[in-house]
Amino acid sequence: MENFTYYSPTKFVFGKETENEAGKLVKEFGGSKVLIHYGGGSVVRSGLLDRVRASLNTEGVPFVELGGVKPNPRSGLVYEGIDLCRKEGVDFVLAVGGGSTIDSAKAIAAGVVYDGDFWDFYQGKWIEAALGVGTILTIAAAGSEGSPDSVITKEEGMFKRGASGDAIRPKFSILNPALTQTLPPHQTAAGITDIMAHLYERYITNSREVEVTDRLIEGLLLTMVHEGPRVIADPDNYEARANIMWAGTMAHNHSCGVGRSQDWLSHMIEHEFSALYDVAHGAGLAVTMPAVFTFEMEHNVMRFAQVAVRVWGCQMDFEHPEVTAKAGIEALRNFLISIGMPSNFKELGAREEDIPQLVDTLCNGDGRDGTISGFLTLNEEDCTKIYKMMI
Amino acid sequence: MENFTYYSPTKFVFGKETENEAGKLVKEFGGSKVLIHYGGGSVVRSGLLDRVRASLNTEGVPFVELGGVKPNPRSGLVYEGIDLCRKEGVDFVLAVGGGSTIDSAKAIAAGVVYDGDFWDFYQGKWIEAALGVGTILTIAAAGSEGSPDSVITKEEGMFKRGASGDAIRPKFSILNPALTQTLPPHQTAAGITDIMAHLYERYITNSREVEVTDRLIEGLLLTMVHEGPRVIADPDNYEARANIMWAGTMAHNHSCGVGRSQDWLSHMIEHEFSALYDVAHGAGLAVTMPAVFTFEMEHNVMRFAQVAVRVWGCQMDFEHPEVTAKAGIEALRNFLISIGMPSNFKELGAREEDIPQLVDTLCNGDGRDGTISGFLTLNEEDCTKIYKMMI
Repeated sequence: MENFTYYSPTKFVFGKETENEAGKLVKEFGGSKVLIHYGGGSVVRSGLLDRVRASLNTEGVPFVELGGVKPNPRSGLVYEGIDLCRKEGVDFVLAVGGGSTIDSAKAIAAGVVYDGDFWDFYQGKWIEAALGVGTILTIAAAGSEGSPDSVITKEEGMFKRGASGDAIRPKFSILNPALTQTLPPHQTAAGITDIMAHLYERYITNSREVEVTDRLIEGLLLTMVHEGPRVIADPDNYEARANIMWAGTMAHNHSCGVGRSQDWLSHMIEHEFSALYDVAHGAGLAVTMPAVFTFEMEHNVMRFAQVAVRVWGCQMDFEHPEVTAKAGIEALRNFLISIGMPSNFKELGAREEDIPQLVDTLCNGDGRDGTISGFLTLNEEDCTKIYKMMI
Repeated sequence: MENFTYYSPTKFVFGKETENEAGKLVKEFGGSKVLIHYGGGSVVRSGLLDRVRASLNTEGVPFVELGGVKPNPRSGLVYEGIDLCRKEGVDFVLAVGGGSTIDSAKAIAAGVVYDGDFWDFYQGKWIEAALGVGTILTIAAAGSEGSPDSVITKEEGMFKRGASGDAIRPKFSILNPALTQTLPPHQTAAGITDIMAHLYERYITNSREVEVTDRLIEGLLLTMVHEGPRVIADPDNYEARANIMWAGTMAHNHSCGVGRSQDWLSHMIEHEFSALYDVAHGAGLAVTMPAVFTFEMEHNVMRFAQVAVRVWGCQMDFEHPEVTAKAGIEALRNFLISIGMPSNFKELGAREEDIPQLVDTLCNGDGRDGTISGFLTLNEEDCTKIYKMMI
């Protein structure tokens, strides 16, 4: 196991009707004037926004509002939010929504107290200070409710970049599983896939002797395998939603990823789909993961055999461990199909003739040197093979 | 799953030589003058105390010292520590040792800033304020490095009582598995047992639909089953020590116990052994758990069958689930014996003729009404049966 630091100071308030504690929590963490930041549609229609307003009013906390966050949140709205917060003397940003809304709120919180252009943070500058951020989560997927990270897309050039810093970790996150019950099945399934990808990216490691984190990751994957189909069959199943929601937070607050190298090649390879075709991140991952894992498998057959046996219940073929390893990848693919995720290029709306462009942006964009690195280092030829495996 | 709040803001710094970061961490969390609090013997002999002093000196942080913490830490030393801190203007308490030292440090930290008698907190008063506490852990067992709790024994009457409050949660905890390599085998095994007990006490629940925390607990138990024998066979195995150490922290920082009722009957029943015979807490738990679980089993056979199958690899007897449930308890007992733990009254140094006294203190002491409650409510007759099962 490698040396590590684990720091997850967010206060998680979990369960039914917990959104009504928003006002109290803002005050507990020193907020005296709030920006409520959200997307649109469902948050308004469901009455959630009204309950949040009421909770702030009850505590006598004044607020302003900024809606309109889109998936793959944009820099334009961040600039708008920063201006609004400065003009109104806001000192706390409350995100009501999913990962995109939370990431946008984090960017605003960091930008308000920074003299320069907030985009500096998304070009590599560590975030040292920010307004307090709180979240009310409506989608179990991205894990941003417990992370120090934010991803924003800059409109000029459509660059999608990440920034980090403990300063933007949410002070509190309200997790009410009932709020996710209205999600359409496709979005629920994409969230499940995203959570499982966060787990696999940590599981696929070159570190040795990491039994405790292996076991924690396997436990969370087993939870997703058990609860995923239950929630797809019955979207109103609060208990299944609750188990998935806590698994989603634990999958990404680093408690199960500490002390080990990680992969993240599937995320990098998927990223090009999101950028070129605007597909849902989870759907892209569903197509990407089985191909990437099949390519990676030979590098450490026993690792893939282990997850096959421990998570997917495959019989270990002691004479041919690669048979077991493959069976595990096949089980993952079949599981993702069973919850309604796509399994190939066509279903994703991707085109074979775009592969050279996908590979070029992947390996040479972002200042890369013709390769990408994680569990393995892949060159353009490798990446071409992997994309072709998805056709 | 039940509503819950999860809050674990401690910064964990894990790995080789991390004790050398003590000075920097104290400054990061606002300490300007430190009390180094410790037990004695090994911390001094191993040179650990010298390295901690050097780390504080390097950062220019002045300190005073108070050693002498004993297992089942006493109120006398706490009063001494409070006086010393006030006299010397200490604003941060650094515990170097195991759970007893950390609990004593927490009591001092709370007492210094409190006008009344610190014992008030151990009679039920919530701890609202305290000096900052940091820890350098030398025993993987109690989980106090990540908890808001402290247990102290009052010398007049030898009352052992607990106190709690987020104010005494460690600001940081340094976890260097190498520091546990010098522990004698019996103490290592007692620590393993304590960690497993923390997991079982959470696992045994009346809550329904808690798959995610079930799976996390099972993952940590599986880790202990794998790593325990490795570390007993080879005390210098850093990797096994590392996996056990992180499992011990995760077992007790509540991440795997949220949203569910818990048991803690084994702890209550063991407590009387520690009090009457001064046995190691872990050793007492090794004798207590199998008896308690055998008694509890009928209340929910499937729960005990589940842990038997998922953790102990027992075959499920679908026609007679109670056979599987029992096999799991037997597997736990055999595992604890295999790492050198006692399995009955005699090995523990307990006496059959003391049972009436044990039961009376257990059920009627501490202002109790003749019963104790957890997974089940037990009366004196039940408790007598359970103690007799341990003979």
